[in-house]
Amino acid sequence: MNVEVVAVGTELLLGQIVDTNSSWIGEQLALAGINSHYQTKVGDNPDRMRTVIGQAIERSDAVLITGGLGPTHDDITRDIIAELTGRPLVRSDELVVKIREMYSSRGQEMPESNLSQADVPDGGWPMEQQPGTAAGLVVPVGDEPDETCVIYAMPGVPYEMHEMMLGTVVPDLIGRSGETATIASRTLRTWGVGESNLGEMLAEEIARLDDPGVGVTLAFNASGIEGLKIRLTAKAADDNAVKVLLDDEEARVRSIVGPIVFGVDDAQTRATVPQNMEAVVLATLRSMNLTVSAAEMATGGLLTSRLLDVPGAGDVLIGSVVPQNEAMAATLVGTTESLEGEAGARALVVAVGERLGTDTAVASGPATAGENGLSTLWLATLVDGNAECLEVTFPSDRNRLRQYATITVLNALRLRLQTAS
Amino acid sequence: MNVEVVAVGTELLLGQIVDTNSSWIGEQLALAGINSHYQTKVGDNPDRMRTVIGQAIERSDAVLITGGLGPTHDDITRDIIAELTGRPLVRSDELVVKIREMYSSRGQEMPESNLSQADVPDGGWPMEQQPGTAAGLVVPVGDEPDETCVIYAMPGVPYEMHEMMLGTVVPDLIGRSGETATIASRTLRTWGVGESNLGEMLAEEIARLDDPGVGVTLAFNASGIEGLKIRLTAKAADDNAVKVLLDDEEARVRSIVGPIVFGVDDAQTRATVPQNMEAVVLATLRSMNLTVSAAEMATGGLLTSRLLDVPGAGDVLIGSVVPQNEAMAATLVGTTESLEGEAGARALVVAVGERLGTDTAVASGPATAGENGLSTLWLATLVDGNAECLEVTFPSDRNRLRQYATITVLNALRLRLQTAS
Repeated sequence: MNVEVVAVGTELLLGQIVDTNSSWIGEQLALAGINSHYQTKVGDNPDRMRTVIGQAIERSDAVLITGGLGPTHDDITRDIIAELTGRPLVRSDELVVKIREMYSSRGQEMPESNLSQADVPDGGWPMEQQPGTAAGLVVPVGDEPDETCVIYAMPGVPYEMHEMMLGTVVPDLIGRSGETATIASRTLRTWGVGESNLGEMLAEEIARLDDPGVGVTLAFNASGIEGLKIRLTAKAADDNAVKVLLDDEEARVRSIVGPIVFGVDDAQTRATVPQNMEAVVLATLRSMNLTVSAAEMATGGLLTSRLLDVPGAGDVLIGSVVPQNEAMAATLVGTTESLEGEAGARALVVAVGERLGTDTAVASGPATAGENGLSTLWLATLVDGNAECLEVTFPSDRNRLRQYATITVLNALRLRLQTAS
Repeated sequence: MNVEVVAVGTELLLGQIVDTNSSWIGEQLALAGINSHYQTKVGDNPDRMRTVIGQAIERSDAVLITGGLGPTHDDITRDIIAELTGRPLVRSDELVVKIREMYSSRGQEMPESNLSQADVPDGGWPMEQQPGTAAGLVVPVGDEPDETCVIYAMPGVPYEMHEMMLGTVVPDLIGRSGETATIASRTLRTWGVGESNLGEMLAEEIARLDDPGVGVTLAFNASGIEGLKIRLTAKAADDNAVKVLLDDEEARVRSIVGPIVFGVDDAQTRATVPQNMEAVVLATLRSMNLTVSAAEMATGGLLTSRLLDVPGAGDVLIGSVVPQNEAMAATLVGTTESLEGEAGARALVVAVGERLGTDTAVASGPATAGENGLSTLWLATLVDGNAECLEVTFPSDRNRLRQYATITVLNALRLRLQTAS
């Protein structure tokens, strides 16, 4: 079963609103094991909507449309669907009553123009979920048994669309697809190795997975400052069989790539916090009953801010200082020497750990801009009273330098804690 | 001139990454007065890429593609372009050298698979801007004078794509469009008034602009934690005439809405730093030759991190502390009393200003979670030795609370400096 998504709205093309709806829909479809091959954004223009929706009806088994169901003259999705399916709009008395009640329950009078929202293409039907005044529509293309496609039209307001997707569209699509297998993914997060090197390390394993009998696929997903993700997807008869496949594949990949894997996101347990570097480091420290502090020269508060974005982090990272020069560092943590180079980073991490009285500490020294748009700096970690330092070279642009330095020094702390524990 | 955008990547369809690239591109095109009618997402699949890109070439004057230019076997954008345009790939010696140098300057060896990134369709050329190893490509469809379309292929990594869009694609498209009228926008950033109130304040002015003879349009753009933006767009014969229109409209709007406007972004002067709250506050402090420090309990380093993301900020915000409890605050800035409530925020801002020896200071006290998912906290500013405090209530969710508190305390400092100067 092939599904495609059409997001309607000129504001989407103009970039006034980012189309997060299509991404969310794509994710729900993937989790349900349904293929979606195209996602198109089109403005509120009859000709272009006809082109895009007409083509989607031709080539796909189901078309999911968001937007254009409001009451204004711009909102023409239901008219275009009526036209393309040859199903004239019929006013639904039931919807008229429903919409009138929504207005009166808010103490408002319904503008007459709103009645257009009660129109339904003949032979189609409104979705049960209707959190706003716009009804979602299910409209078959052709009549049974010669139905060639089905259209689901939903409003563009995210929470309204979400209810309809989860309540009507996904269950309906699963029913239509006749699919009984379960599909699930697991993502291994890595830091420290580039995409092409990782590809070479895993080339043999990827070749092994080319045999469709294995039932697992592997893909890379470069997430910039979040590192490189290895996504494993398995398909099997039931949840348990999928889990066995994913466990086996995770073990194989880990045995090949080693400790660069720092976290795992599992769609089967999506309720938990995303396993990014800061969450992993905080969880490790908490499990060992250790506190941490930070002195951030080059990272400028970003490390602290990222860590403290994780719920409960303030009990582990109990304090940070962000000095922008040596005199300020002296005031804040009592360092007396130069903070340049390896000796400086070492002095800084020891001083912040001592002054703030924490079990571990991290520090970034000042960055020195070099040639080719690259800067060099020293990072340091303190564990069991021992400082270790690391020289790194990153792009000089502020944002990337701070992000890379943050994740690199946290990764260094993670690796030391792993050895210590 | 009709342009369309194709974003390539299976991860986009699966919702693993939100396609913010297309929105950003749509915004840049709109600012340049270029129509974009379709935006399509397609997976890394040869047949479907052929369908989508082939159709785009047929119906549009220019096709902007993002993604699929990396070095892995998934990355097939340049092959598909070569095929559809009948222009075989030719390895560019110049690009080979460039890519090798990028690797060696980072002290890494280039994997041989990376050489595919030096392939260019015959008769096309690489873009000058190339921040990463993937070169952007300009590929005409057909030969002059029968050129029917032009393809711009850019990497999916946002900062790489941004440089290429602003450096090559937008200027090139403006040149090709033959448009002689100038269109430009100016954005007034506001903080402290909601969208419907702002709409009421400006209703009369918006009605006045309905007359197309005025040549200026006004639109709101709610940017969440960045505040509400008022976007003015003017069209006239030349740059100067556009500037006169925008100057006049900006003055009218300012006279209506008053000091809630804290910054102005002007597309005609896009080289400068975006005029967000932190940039505005830093520029104000610098112009008055004042330094600032911060003590961040509720904001957890976010204020420091946002300020230090602005180039040169470290000379103004010379130091910050992020204590997560009262004992740590006592260690870092020498406070001896409770930090609860108004008195606590006052004590904190006075102590950090004194200990760190800065001319001004800002502080956020601890947040107290209340009912309805809302939290209350005290913010404080120090100017000329006088502390002023402000109680605020924000959504309890960590990210929004920290963002709103950051921008609110910076806005309070801005308003005090405005009065002081």
